[in-house]
Amino acid sequence: MAPAPELAVGMMDGRDATKVMTIEASKNMAVIDMHSHFFPAMDAAYRARAEVEGLPWIRDTGGGKGFIMQGGTEFRPVDDVLWDPARRVEALDAQGIDLQILCATPIMFGYGRPAAEARDLAQRFNDEALAFCGYAPHRMKALAQVPLQDIDMACAEVSRAMATGHLGVQIGNHMGMRNLDDEGLLTFLAHCAEVGAAVLIHPWDMMARERMPKYMLPWLVAMPAETQLSILSLILSGAFERLPKSLRICFGHGGGSFAFLLGRVENAWKYRDIVRADCPRPPSTYVDRFFVDSAVFDPRALSLLIDVMGEDRVLLGSDHPFPLGEQDIGSLVLGHEGLSGAQKAKILSGNAKAFLNL
Amino acid sequence: MAPAPELAVGMMDGRDATKVMTIEASKNMAVIDMHSHFFPAMDAAYRARAEVEGLPWIRDTGGGKGFIMQGGTEFRPVDDVLWDPARRVEALDAQGIDLQILCATPIMFGYGRPAAEARDLAQRFNDEALAFCGYAPHRMKALAQVPLQDIDMACAEVSRAMATGHLGVQIGNHMGMRNLDDEGLLTFLAHCAEVGAAVLIHPWDMMARERMPKYMLPWLVAMPAETQLSILSLILSGAFERLPKSLRICFGHGGGSFAFLLGRVENAWKYRDIVRADCPRPPSTYVDRFFVDSAVFDPRALSLLIDVMGEDRVLLGSDHPFPLGEQDIGSLVLGHEGLSGAQKAKILSGNAKAFLNL
Repeated sequence: MAPAPELAVGMMDGRDATKVMTIEASKNMAVIDMHSHFFPAMDAAYRARAEVEGLPWIRDTGGGKGFIMQGGTEFRPVDDVLWDPARRVEALDAQGIDLQILCATPIMFGYGRPAAEARDLAQRFNDEALAFCGYAPHRMKALAQVPLQDIDMACAEVSRAMATGHLGVQIGNHMGMRNLDDEGLLTFLAHCAEVGAAVLIHPWDMMARERMPKYMLPWLVAMPAETQLSILSLILSGAFERLPKSLRICFGHGGGSFAFLLGRVENAWKYRDIVRADCPRPPSTYVDRFFVDSAVFDPRALSLLIDVMGEDRVLLGSDHPFPLGEQDIGSLVLGHEGLSGAQKAKILSGNAKAFLNL
Repeated sequence: MAPAPELAVGMMDGRDATKVMTIEASKNMAVIDMHSHFFPAMDAAYRARAEVEGLPWIRDTGGGKGFIMQGGTEFRPVDDVLWDPARRVEALDAQGIDLQILCATPIMFGYGRPAAEARDLAQRFNDEALAFCGYAPHRMKALAQVPLQDIDMACAEVSRAMATGHLGVQIGNHMGMRNLDDEGLLTFLAHCAEVGAAVLIHPWDMMARERMPKYMLPWLVAMPAETQLSILSLILSGAFERLPKSLRICFGHGGGSFAFLLGRVENAWKYRDIVRADCPRPPSTYVDRFFVDSAVFDPRALSLLIDVMGEDRVLLGSDHPFPLGEQDIGSLVLGHEGLSGAQKAKILSGNAKAFLNL
């Protein structure tokens, strides 16, 4: 799947040669990136309505650049790899990615809207996702979004999405004050297991943003804490004791701060009754119940992550095409000196196949 | 300093024999625990006033047990090692600790009180801390507390505390909406450098507690996020460029989630202008400006911490005598198979001597 080196050098536009060599070295290894985002361009009618109603949309400012807008407000500068499937496939070629899993940019969730409106948006965005992937169906597959504020509607939409070609669903990691151990959210997760939908948990609506006014601190501090909170909510509530083992669930951004802080949690579980009240087994024994992606951006952190989670539980995920994602997708795994070829193969594609049931 | 093995077995009350062997093995190695808490018993007049005015106090319920109270409410069950210096020294003997640094339990800070009242409380608690340590002055030393809501008063109290025998100061990691890069807090930190006070930053007043109603999640999720937020506030604001290099500052709980998430921060600094706006150098280059304690409760996490921070920047800290602290103080470091004897000596005492200027 990787392009010829000459072509790659041109397309990679100034990246250093080691990346080309890395891509070459990976030629015999399938690469599946299971955490990336898209945003459909949508038609003029939607964009006009979105601008008025405060919905998210893409403003194409030309030259491959644009903005994610929320109503009339610029939310984030982006480029056309986010909304143009042809440009996305060019990027996948340049990066040597065989298959990429696309899901909504979290601003598309619509969880704060009336449920029926969020359902209609989800249906529309989910159909757009399939159309986007249809440009190169063997290179791009999608995870759906659902109106999570209404569990019945969310279950119905994930069923519809699976029937139309999605591999699963991405949801935000909480719904207001309800963490993942909320009964409604557990009902939804059990339904996903029943219909065979892989579930990616993505942090959103970050805690304590008022305390983090600068430097993207909500993305650097609150997002990893959100993800850790979600994992601990499932573990310490005993939810994993009740959820079916067939549930395939993955947490983005390397599981946030979970892996590094597991020792603190384990110690607290041992020595404090109110920590273990609803959790019959040590927290560390539940790591075989979920996956995490590899987006930790540091070989030392990746080593710890694999040590804690096991080599079957970490999947390549880039957060592409955002600046806080891995810019040279897969380079952290491919360039890791402590991993065997077999381990790299698992993380680059084998584990994704298990998670996605491919 | 370690007791004879026979005595140790009795005093350790059921702990397994490997701990005794570990203590024996450490006999030739000085052990300084630089993160522990105390709460003075105070006199009857204080306790009566505290119960009425909502101040923190110790209710001794007999048999070595009691509660930290806030006014009339039970805040946390504790035992007399927290308030009785004789019992504390027995614990240090049993654990083989040569020197322990005591500081306030954060509920004693009084940051939400009128400044003059917090100053009076700080003076009283600081004097009590010295009296507590006076029971065995070569085994226990103290870090002061200050009325951080008033920077002038805080500077005055840290100066007074240093003159009376404190080694430095412990402060909460934020003051309401003001993170550590607040100009007033930076003035305080610069003053600490000037008067030679070591500074321990301790998480308190945890973010998003309303999202964490059970399982001590504020201690497991929000505390490490608070500490990471504080470190990043100093780094990304460029504060370390302005603070004197003579400042000796340490973050508890292994620096929270900082070390594991540094790769995410470094990547964001590289690829997003608003992350690096006030920070001229890569975030990872500032790790030589602060210390972290070793309270991570997992050898894999400790390895990562030492890899990221360097072996001169990690100090033994137990969070003793609380249940979320290290129960067998130093056992994580002593039992770590990947550390050399020289590295263990640094983490168990050498680095603490540098931090505390002993």
